[in-house]
Amino acid sequence: MAQSKRILEYPNEPDRQSLSALLVRKNAPFNAEPTPPDLVKNYITPIQYFFCRSHGPIPDLQDDHTFVINGLGVRGKEQTWSVKDIKQKYDKKYVMMAMQGNRRDGLHRVKHTKGVIWGPCAIGNGVYAGCRLKDVLESVGVTKDLPDLGRLHCEEDVCYGSSIPLTKALGVSLGLALINTATTYRDPFGDVLLAYEMNGEPLTRDHGHPLRVVVPGYIGARSVKFLKSITIQGFESEAFYQRRDYKILPQHAKKEDQAELFWSKMPSIGEYNVQSYVCDPADGLHSGQTKNQVVQGYALSDSLLDVSGNDGKTWVEASLYQPAADGKATHVWGWCTWTARVDTVDNVRIVCRAVDSSGNIQQEQPVWNYRGVMNNSWRTADKRPDAVL
Amino acid sequence: MAQSKRILEYPNEPDRQSLSALLVRKNAPFNAEPTPPDLVKNYITPIQYFFCRSHGPIPDLQDDHTFVINGLGVRGKEQTWSVKDIKQKYDKKYVMMAMQGNRRDGLHRVKHTKGVIWGPCAIGNGVYAGCRLKDVLESVGVTKDLPDLGRLHCEEDVCYGSSIPLTKALGVSLGLALINTATTYRDPFGDVLLAYEMNGEPLTRDHGHPLRVVVPGYIGARSVKFLKSITIQGFESEAFYQRRDYKILPQHAKKEDQAELFWSKMPSIGEYNVQSYVCDPADGLHSGQTKNQVVQGYALSDSLLDVSGNDGKTWVEASLYQPAADGKATHVWGWCTWTARVDTVDNVRIVCRAVDSSGNIQQEQPVWNYRGVMNNSWRTADKRPDAVL
Repeated sequence: MAQSKRILEYPNEPDRQSLSALLVRKNAPFNAEPTPPDLVKNYITPIQYFFCRSHGPIPDLQDDHTFVINGLGVRGKEQTWSVKDIKQKYDKKYVMMAMQGNRRDGLHRVKHTKGVIWGPCAIGNGVYAGCRLKDVLESVGVTKDLPDLGRLHCEEDVCYGSSIPLTKALGVSLGLALINTATTYRDPFGDVLLAYEMNGEPLTRDHGHPLRVVVPGYIGARSVKFLKSITIQGFESEAFYQRRDYKILPQHAKKEDQAELFWSKMPSIGEYNVQSYVCDPADGLHSGQTKNQVVQGYALSDSLLDVSGNDGKTWVEASLYQPAADGKATHVWGWCTWTARVDTVDNVRIVCRAVDSSGNIQQEQPVWNYRGVMNNSWRTADKRPDAVL
Repeated sequence: MAQSKRILEYPNEPDRQSLSALLVRKNAPFNAEPTPPDLVKNYITPIQYFFCRSHGPIPDLQDDHTFVINGLGVRGKEQTWSVKDIKQKYDKKYVMMAMQGNRRDGLHRVKHTKGVIWGPCAIGNGVYAGCRLKDVLESVGVTKDLPDLGRLHCEEDVCYGSSIPLTKALGVSLGLALINTATTYRDPFGDVLLAYEMNGEPLTRDHGHPLRVVVPGYIGARSVKFLKSITIQGFESEAFYQRRDYKILPQHAKKEDQAELFWSKMPSIGEYNVQSYVCDPADGLHSGQTKNQVVQGYALSDSLLDVSGNDGKTWVEASLYQPAADGKATHVWGWCTWTARVDTVDNVRIVCRAVDSSGNIQQEQPVWNYRGVMNNSWRTADKRPDAVL
């Protein structure tokens, strides 16, 4: 069963004049990302350089927009809230996080992938503000005392639908805090937000106005925009985007009919993997041999970042920039920007390679999958005119 | 400051006749691992094929052995328990987990590393039984209500010392359950054990009799044997093995004096990375071209495992064997064993490559670090007589 195709119209899209620096990957629905050098000009990515990802027309909603919370544990079975209500009732919290849905291009070059061909800049480091989803859930009766907590999910909407484990929403571990909290200070609260601000301003329509979910550490697809409903239930969202989309399929699933065999077998992607990219120079190459060429990029790593001016023959360690939390927002979920000086060789790739504190490392060659997701191979460099870099 | 060298004597080591199938990497202290084909003969690794890792003479302790619990939150500041006490007082719980400290050989071949040269079989899948560390801690006053929980650590011993975040011990997340709990059932309790049994028998001396910590999902170095003390404190263990050993240093730290500059900067390793290995054929090669050669191995992955009979030119998906929990032990922390049929080429590597549900993938080439830790590159294959395979 393929996804049924709806004919969508786009009569009321937001004004995007201020986004003229973005490379448009698709006009309708609107999908765009910045150039690599623009992306790393700032540690906090300004809206003008922040990638936009949408699956349909952008709704035009105001603060009187309401959403419902229903499902297991919810008092009265269903409650309706307006955005205005939740702004007044709950404390405002800040989370800095890297939002991403990134780098399909590298896999698409290996073999056809399904979806918008994102380059390496469908990532941004934003400071989101809103109320904690955990606070809202607890106030309507959804707490960690629910029976069988480990099997529950928190569904965000049903049309563009998605879900996260309820434990993620509540900030409750099931004895499985696999991450190393030994060396980094982390916000001692559930960090999933119902966000209404981004970088100190109300969310723009392209970024989910008036309310979106923000799920730090997870792929962007779980941070649902224009929130309409939250449902606590004993299964993952049955929405297309949870069940039949963001999954890593085996390599022999090359076409839709072959993919059919695997959707139900493979896990949904939640947290993202170790990642980094050379953004400046933009094409990952330098014309001519240069000593001490300054290169810059971003990384999702809490540990090490090596850079090579000669396609991996020799490496130098990059300087990571990841300022400490400023009191309002923790940096835990944010990215690093980095700088290194390398000796470059004419027409040879400049690459980088991040290591996380568990020793996961970016591999050299892209490993293709049908949906083109989670590509974290070394960067591509390609001067062909049609290349998406 | 280098580690001070103690002269250790070994007059009272356990009888190891039943361990004759192990390859001894070092006699004193005793360090040994099975051959690759022996390792994957069983899903639950029997003691005769279970690697042994020690840093000194093996103590000869009985059930009247006592350990102390002290530090922040502990009622009366310090409490002393005997192994017999805790067996009687607390429920017996089971955890199946992959214990490992593995594959230094692959990095050592790139360049000298410091430490015992482990091959790829310093890993085993054991079923441990004991009481939950969480239950013990809570009963002495150490709960998730301690102030500044996210900064606390649970130190296990001080001689061979190590520590884990207290949140790991208590099974409390700080809103940071980065793992994908969406698709797998996980034990809804803190899974760190004070274990006194392994595979249905009392722990042997080589495996920590009478009591050891078992920290699922973490490198073996955090599962301290012959437990003498537990201390709740506001900093990581200051023991050598926590601060100056199991860390991934940058590649330019090639010698002890260069390493000095990085010990305090790099994070301690906690959880382990994505991993898999071809164990049968033992040397990762097959003499002659064979169609449908059966190969077997192990993997630490919840997602995908590809196998190649031609050094990565083409891949097939392996069948993963990971039986569901049997009611006593959850399989969440266990490994997979796997089988695949590949076409092999004379003297060309047979390799495998695991992907986890976040898209972390094993990289082709080993990335060297001074301590030779967390190697998860594709397997090596080497017929030189001195090769550690």
